[in-house]
Amino acid sequence: MTEKPHPLTRSRPHLGTSASEAFLTGPPAPPLTGQHGAGRAQNDDVPTRPHRSTGKAVVALGGGHGLSASLSALRLLTSHLTAIVTVADDGGSSGRLREELGVLPPGDLRMALSALCDDSDWGMTWRDVMQHRFGSPPDRSTPLEGHALGNLLIVTLWELLGDPVEGLRWAGALLRAQGQVLPMSVTPLIIEGDVADDSAQSGVRTVTGQAALAKEPYVRNVRLQPPGAVVCKQALDAVESADAVILGPGSWHTSVLPHVLLPELRQALSATEGRRVITMNLSRDTETEGKTSAEELQVLHEHAPELHIDAVVADPTSVEDQDHLQEVAGSMGATVHLADLRRSQGEGVHSPFKLAAAYQEVLGAW
Amino acid sequence: MTEKPHPLTRSRPHLGTSASEAFLTGPPAPPLTGQHGAGRAQNDDVPTRPHRSTGKAVVALGGGHGLSASLSALRLLTSHLTAIVTVADDGGSSGRLREELGVLPPGDLRMALSALCDDSDWGMTWRDVMQHRFGSPPDRSTPLEGHALGNLLIVTLWELLGDPVEGLRWAGALLRAQGQVLPMSVTPLIIEGDVADDSAQSGVRTVTGQAALAKEPYVRNVRLQPPGAVVCKQALDAVESADAVILGPGSWHTSVLPHVLLPELRQALSATEGRRVITMNLSRDTETEGKTSAEELQVLHEHAPELHIDAVVADPTSVEDQDHLQEVAGSMGATVHLADLRRSQGEGVHSPFKLAAAYQEVLGAW
Repeated sequence: MTEKPHPLTRSRPHLGTSASEAFLTGPPAPPLTGQHGAGRAQNDDVPTRPHRSTGKAVVALGGGHGLSASLSALRLLTSHLTAIVTVADDGGSSGRLREELGVLPPGDLRMALSALCDDSDWGMTWRDVMQHRFGSPPDRSTPLEGHALGNLLIVTLWELLGDPVEGLRWAGALLRAQGQVLPMSVTPLIIEGDVADDSAQSGVRTVTGQAALAKEPYVRNVRLQPPGAVVCKQALDAVESADAVILGPGSWHTSVLPHVLLPELRQALSATEGRRVITMNLSRDTETEGKTSAEELQVLHEHAPELHIDAVVADPTSVEDQDHLQEVAGSMGATVHLADLRRSQGEGVHSPFKLAAAYQEVLGAW
Repeated sequence: MTEKPHPLTRSRPHLGTSASEAFLTGPPAPPLTGQHGAGRAQNDDVPTRPHRSTGKAVVALGGGHGLSASLSALRLLTSHLTAIVTVADDGGSSGRLREELGVLPPGDLRMALSALCDDSDWGMTWRDVMQHRFGSPPDRSTPLEGHALGNLLIVTLWELLGDPVEGLRWAGALLRAQGQVLPMSVTPLIIEGDVADDSAQSGVRTVTGQAALAKEPYVRNVRLQPPGAVVCKQALDAVESADAVILGPGSWHTSVLPHVLLPELRQALSATEGRRVITMNLSRDTETEGKTSAEELQVLHEHAPELHIDAVVADPTSVEDQDHLQEVAGSMGATVHLADLRRSQGEGVHSPFKLAAAYQEVLGAW
């Protein structure tokens, strides 16, 4: 057995913590930890995670990188964390698996699990394994190209265990994930929207599928198909019993909106006694190109007019018109909490620390 | 979280043991064990593993199903176990990965790891994940078809960690494998042989590649390519310090012979002070069709005439001519140990229990 330091840089980017923290909730470290820990001990400059004072139940809803950002912040505040993930992806590795094997698209679920992985060498190595994508030789394309190993592993667990939630529980156990990851639906979803050719709403047509819709700037009336999609029961339970539910950030039409479009989930979001928070994006992608953050929020309001919101969290540098944002937020019952949330100036990525601080403030006595 | 019993039958076929055994060497059970253990508790009829009285160092060399059979027996006797695996496979999932990604063929390594998995629900679930093969819809073939997830996982660990031995160590840790699995070489090997058209040795030609060679009945002069193949240093160390080394059973030309064809490994096998045992096959496959077990042994002797052997283990029902087998064994310095080794009468599969008993007898005071 080799005793050399781990060849990878084993830090959790921008979040790294000491593997010896006392409050790790996963099972004890495996025999490998000691030998690989050497590679991480050099990260003296990364801050350690502050002590969590409570285990309040928090549910984060979204998909993709936006949800990961939210989870990276929330795991600093609580270990009682549930991620509810959009399962409408039909592009890339997930789309191929969905199409070929008839399974839920695993990609956003994998990313959420990875965001919750344990900070130990064990957790981060298996996270790196899950996130690893196969390449190809320079001269040609191969069948595995672009597949993330974690997608294949999650699908395998599903095929073996026959239950999406159970499969994700095993994948979470591998990563010693701090919290659980659930699909919003146990059947694959299709996103559909009315799309115009321009901002004047001329030439409206229907566009079907997340990958296609994400490329359209003039989308309205987003819907989910099929009508009989089966909500994930455990997701409903988590929302109903949550102390707080956090929606966004993320691709607005394809990762955030779907959560209020599935009737049972929307009902649970309305019924929960937990505080409801919406986190706005730091920048616009194609989906909401040209929209202000107030208009982005308005889109959500229009798709779920009865949904009461307690707080809207936004970075002032991404809010074009603070009065307008406050007006739309107010119509949903919410106050706007403005705070510097960027990892560094001008960068469109949330700082987990700043976002955690903002959540802590809007959620009250944590 | 669901609390229902595990949907799979979680027994180790023909070997199942209680998950509560005191001598488990892996890390403590993960949180999932309790809930899934229910599925296994019904296997009242499977015997529990006898207490191992020693931790003698045993090395098993081979590949594929034969090596798995040997490992399933040896794990009943010791936890100080090393599997050294042929890496010349060029067919199936392994062959595709080798060809597309330039890695060692992982399949036989995966099977050896699976044979060593922990008996807990954790170990057996991840074994099932590793062994799982992707299928395709009934109406078409898909790019993932036939790939074992474990092959993809091992390759991912290799790509991430950059070291075949280190990658296998992590895969073993996942399974809480009882022992280590090593490749015989850290570079992929090619098997080549002189092949005749018939038993009269007419029309001799060179056949290259394990998959092709395994289909040829009249093979002689098996060789390894490339000449500069890099032996696995840890494999040499394990052989040199072993109390016993066990070669076979397995496909004779493509899984067993290669271990005496790599110069450094052959030298280590000759130099070790451990007892050397050869386990004969219960039946002939294409490679040795028409050969007696004595002739099979003779092939090994001819390829490594200087190799001294202490014992040859065989089932009497698979030995056509006991005198001849004893004669060939004697020329290698070995005595023949005949014992019923079949799982059930007429079946060409080794019973781990019977094989363990035979190993215990030939290896002396265990």
